[in-house]
Amino acid sequence: MAQIGHNRHQTPLLDGVKEPADLRKLDEGQLREFADELRAEMIEAVSATGGHLGAGLGVVELTTALHYVFNTPDDRLIWDVSHQCYPHKILTGRRDRMRSLRQGGGLSGFTSRKESIYDPFGAAHSSTSISAGLGFSVARDFRGEDNAVIAVIGDGAMSAGMAYEAMNNAGAMNSRLIVILNDNDMSIAPPVGAMSAYLSQLISSKPFQSVRNLGRELAKRFPRPIEMAAKRAEEYARGLLTGGTLFEELGFFYIGPIDGHNLDHLLPVLKNVRDADYEGPVLIHCVTQKGKGYEPAEAAADKYHGVAKFDVVTGKQAKPAPKAPAYQNVFAQALIAEAEIDDKIVAVSAAMPSGTGLNKFSERFPERTFDVGIAEQHAVTFCAGLACEGFRPFAAIYSTFLQRAYDQVVHDVAIQSLPVRFAIDRAGMVGADGVTHQGSYDLTYLGCLPNFVLMAPSDEVELMHMVATACQIDDRPSAFRYPRGEALGLEMPDRGSPLEIGKGRIVREGSKVAILSLGTRLADALAAADDLAARGLSTTVADARFAKPLDEDLVRRLAHEHEVLITVEEGAIGGFATQVMQFLALEGAFDKGLRFRPVTLPDIFIDHDKPDQQLVQAGIDRGGILSAVLQALGQDEVESPARA
Amino acid sequence: MAQIGHNRHQTPLLDGVKEPADLRKLDEGQLREFADELRAEMIEAVSATGGHLGAGLGVVELTTALHYVFNTPDDRLIWDVSHQCYPHKILTGRRDRMRSLRQGGGLSGFTSRKESIYDPFGAAHSSTSISAGLGFSVARDFRGEDNAVIAVIGDGAMSAGMAYEAMNNAGAMNSRLIVILNDNDMSIAPPVGAMSAYLSQLISSKPFQSVRNLGRELAKRFPRPIEMAAKRAEEYARGLLTGGTLFEELGFFYIGPIDGHNLDHLLPVLKNVRDADYEGPVLIHCVTQKGKGYEPAEAAADKYHGVAKFDVVTGKQAKPAPKAPAYQNVFAQALIAEAEIDDKIVAVSAAMPSGTGLNKFSERFPERTFDVGIAEQHAVTFCAGLACEGFRPFAAIYSTFLQRAYDQVVHDVAIQSLPVRFAIDRAGMVGADGVTHQGSYDLTYLGCLPNFVLMAPSDEVELMHMVATACQIDDRPSAFRYPRGEALGLEMPDRGSPLEIGKGRIVREGSKVAILSLGTRLADALAAADDLAARGLSTTVADARFAKPLDEDLVRRLAHEHEVLITVEEGAIGGFATQVMQFLALEGAFDKGLRFRPVTLPDIFIDHDKPDQQLVQAGIDRGGILSAVLQALGQDEVESPARA
Repeated sequence: MAQIGHNRHQTPLLDGVKEPADLRKLDEGQLREFADELRAEMIEAVSATGGHLGAGLGVVELTTALHYVFNTPDDRLIWDVSHQCYPHKILTGRRDRMRSLRQGGGLSGFTSRKESIYDPFGAAHSSTSISAGLGFSVARDFRGEDNAVIAVIGDGAMSAGMAYEAMNNAGAMNSRLIVILNDNDMSIAPPVGAMSAYLSQLISSKPFQSVRNLGRELAKRFPRPIEMAAKRAEEYARGLLTGGTLFEELGFFYIGPIDGHNLDHLLPVLKNVRDADYEGPVLIHCVTQKGKGYEPAEAAADKYHGVAKFDVVTGKQAKPAPKAPAYQNVFAQALIAEAEIDDKIVAVSAAMPSGTGLNKFSERFPERTFDVGIAEQHAVTFCAGLACEGFRPFAAIYSTFLQRAYDQVVHDVAIQSLPVRFAIDRAGMVGADGVTHQGSYDLTYLGCLPNFVLMAPSDEVELMHMVATACQIDDRPSAFRYPRGEALGLEMPDRGSPLEIGKGRIVREGSKVAILSLGTRLADALAAADDLAARGLSTTVADARFAKPLDEDLVRRLAHEHEVLITVEEGAIGGFATQVMQFLALEGAFDKGLRFRPVTLPDIFIDHDKPDQQLVQAGIDRGGILSAVLQALGQDEVESPARA
Repeated sequence: MAQIGHNRHQTPLLDGVKEPADLRKLDEGQLREFADELRAEMIEAVSATGGHLGAGLGVVELTTALHYVFNTPDDRLIWDVSHQCYPHKILTGRRDRMRSLRQGGGLSGFTSRKESIYDPFGAAHSSTSISAGLGFSVARDFRGEDNAVIAVIGDGAMSAGMAYEAMNNAGAMNSRLIVILNDNDMSIAPPVGAMSAYLSQLISSKPFQSVRNLGRELAKRFPRPIEMAAKRAEEYARGLLTGGTLFEELGFFYIGPIDGHNLDHLLPVLKNVRDADYEGPVLIHCVTQKGKGYEPAEAAADKYHGVAKFDVVTGKQAKPAPKAPAYQNVFAQALIAEAEIDDKIVAVSAAMPSGTGLNKFSERFPERTFDVGIAEQHAVTFCAGLACEGFRPFAAIYSTFLQRAYDQVVHDVAIQSLPVRFAIDRAGMVGADGVTHQGSYDLTYLGCLPNFVLMAPSDEVELMHMVATACQIDDRPSAFRYPRGEALGLEMPDRGSPLEIGKGRIVREGSKVAILSLGTRLADALAAADDLAARGLSTTVADARFAKPLDEDLVRRLAHEHEVLITVEEGAIGGFATQVMQFLALEGAFDKGLRFRPVTLPDIFIDHDKPDQQLVQAGIDRGGILSAVLQALGQDEVESPARA
């Protein structure tokens, strides 16, 4: 067995596998050793970069078995969420770049069509793989080909409605699609011993299928109720032993559960499924253990879901001491302070209790915290129901995931003007998670909705004020958006103070240039103002606080009293700048000339990198703001490396 | 029995029921007659207004039974979609306003919190009721009250992921929630006779519950696998007779199926459920018939789902002969023409085959048409999978429903730059369906996404061209949005001709004022240009065709060569006008003055009315455009009733 933690482990089998075709030349008897090497290699690689470790550890054997049994890339292998794809990356020609993982210009932390032909579908948000897989399998049928299509999806991702929609549709079609349920929810505790493995092998085998098909054909000759009862009887007989009737009800042929770490159990079932000629979709239920095979991960509560760089021998992570609290914890602290004096406040998370800080809220108010699973649509409308009854629900959802519930925000919350509060975390650039997780659009997709109050704090004290403000907005929805990462380290009040709705603030007085910033870009706006002052350009800087309702007096004043007006936000086109421009245009502020420039995210998708670098790439950093002002003044011949 | 179609039917029982409390004073023996009167009254009312008829006919007995057994409005009754709510409206104090249904200033065609305390939650999009209901029931628990919460949801709405998310979450909680599955999917054909009714009554009764709870308590003393097997055995024993294990697997206690038109079956089960003290959610499976009790509806293929005004005796609808084809049919015709010569084109609908015109496509290409059910999320990512394999999928989805799949558009399509084509129907004002169905936001929520091509045709010939254009865009997503209703009646080519990407066209040359229109507002823009010409204001009118990529040359030219530039679109803030303004601002076009005005939908939700009236209310009609120009020119003292 490969020696984990020895410097450096030997990987003779893995060294010979440049691509999956090489793997398929090994004997089955070598696969256990191969998997051990693969696991050791992944641990080594992630120890150097940080990233998602626990999920990958759980699928080392599954990844090995899938590439061994199936003929990738002709057979399409689609990883749901795909933070478990590191072993897959190592196996598919990317081993030598693993130490660039999640870094600027390096490998993505997820599957990516840009990166490899072994990644037929990119992912990072959950529960998309069955829908995509059905598209691939239907396309295969159209072309008259016979490649397999395999979607690997976790039990958590199965809680999302999208997975159900896809299964429901796949179950009603005859296309051959293989779904592998990678189940590491220990609470289910299904039987995964030798008997279950034997049964799984048996029911996936050709002889059983023949009998099953014969039985079905016979049943079809009876009246429909008897046909259905016969079908149910078979389904239930297996269900009593194994579970899985949910999937059978949705039209899948269910096999399992089997031990996803036992290659002797995995390989025969996968081969049976590969070689069988069932019609329609199949679900193979594998039970795995997150963090498997690396003792520090197995022992940790979070199974090393996401880690910093770490020492392989000790498992100790090299997390630098934070200089200031993370924004999500400020949010939690502020909400706890409010909830202490207002028992109508409740908090809802969609499977992100620690990411959103609600784990802290939950410690103080367990009965008032709801984690609904990966189910953003339900989360929002559940909040709407609570709001109807006079409660003050806070839906804490990442900007990128709130996209999953857009219609619920429009239809259930905004149209009914219900006072649901949206705590929108990870707004703006998110760093290493990259393109799929950027919180770029919330100001745009919420700014167009009547009734909304839309805020963004410029620092953590402002965030506390906005939580307090949202508590008091009882007649309509409100949202506040804040970034990933550490706040500024300011001294904090015990509680926030409610802000006047729709009023911004001047933070620096000047005369020639006005910079109107929304959110945490304020610090760079102030820095740019220093740069401008150094050039003799007197600059006003204002913190808008509200994208909506807009502080019209403030905007009007800034426009009238300055030659140049710049808006700054960490968001795409259509957001805060649009609110300002539309107001200025309707006011006629452009009629006689106004040097107005919107500094927004550019019209490109921005890949993983350090957040600072992403801001530079986007041109919304200090240099980008300076550059926009100089361009407005016709002075843009000045050197501007940030925009180069 | 009330005489349907007699002029006018007698409704002595209904006449005495001003609110549900009056209904509860009747004897059970009178309810059959009451339901007949209610049905007759609804038919009469809808015959005068048009609207959703078939769904309401299917729930007359259920509505009666629910208000009879439960204590509304203290017990919360939530109708999913709520187009079946007409009997409920008649019963809850709105009978005298039924003939204003779906008309300007009249009753909404859906439930509405603004309208009645008997409507605790508004709806119109599907599958929201269980999530909202769970919010109501959790709130009830917090308050220590014991009112019932009842969500009534159709079998179609159950195909949406949101319903599954909600059931999954409700099933994991102990809150008392009653879900009534109103199942009129004849394909299921479950047993709904006397035996099933007896069983349903039995298993919902207190004695059975006591035995069941005892069994559960006993089972809990055994090891977990045996406990689970015991639970399953009970579930399956009932499942063999009745189905419903899907719901049991999700944690619901399943009762049914029962005949939803038989009050003798309905009432005892509802009373049992009301009086029982189960923990957790209950699902009552009712089988009903859409269009029930009105012979013309029962005989019609669509069960009179949505009708025009009609003659009660004959059932004949007063549909005026269309003067021009509806836009959805032009889309279908154009797509068929392309698909005749391109076998990679496939079409996907989310349960709207006739609304989107894809029923026509399906007649010609049944194998290349996919109706995935009410499952927009899945529909979009299914298309993404197809696009990966070289197919040319067209996702035909209403603007308002595409909101349901926003994250899939961003994450699965746009980020991967996959050539999925979005045929966005019902963009802009939709008329009688009102506020929940307005297609106001698509230009905004898609315009912010990199890679997208975003088009809007100004008439049906342009729509054909855009379908042809979308066929050719193979490297990125594209969308074209078009309104509800009849096109202009232009002569049509056999096939569309692909347009140059990102190029608009001048349709009228002038010198002082420029109007840049996107979409079908072009006709009013031209009319406004006539009005301006009559005032001596020479006006250029251009059809932008593309919101993205923007025709920058055209915008630049219009800005430079005219005193005033107006954009016009049938969309909210952040859409086309924003694309133009952002470009103009970054170009410095405002620096020396440009009288620019965006004509967009205002920041309000617009209720049901005639589409023309909605456009006037929005200020984006001929008068609104004229008014914007005059305001820009400082001539807005001119009378402008449209904006008043």
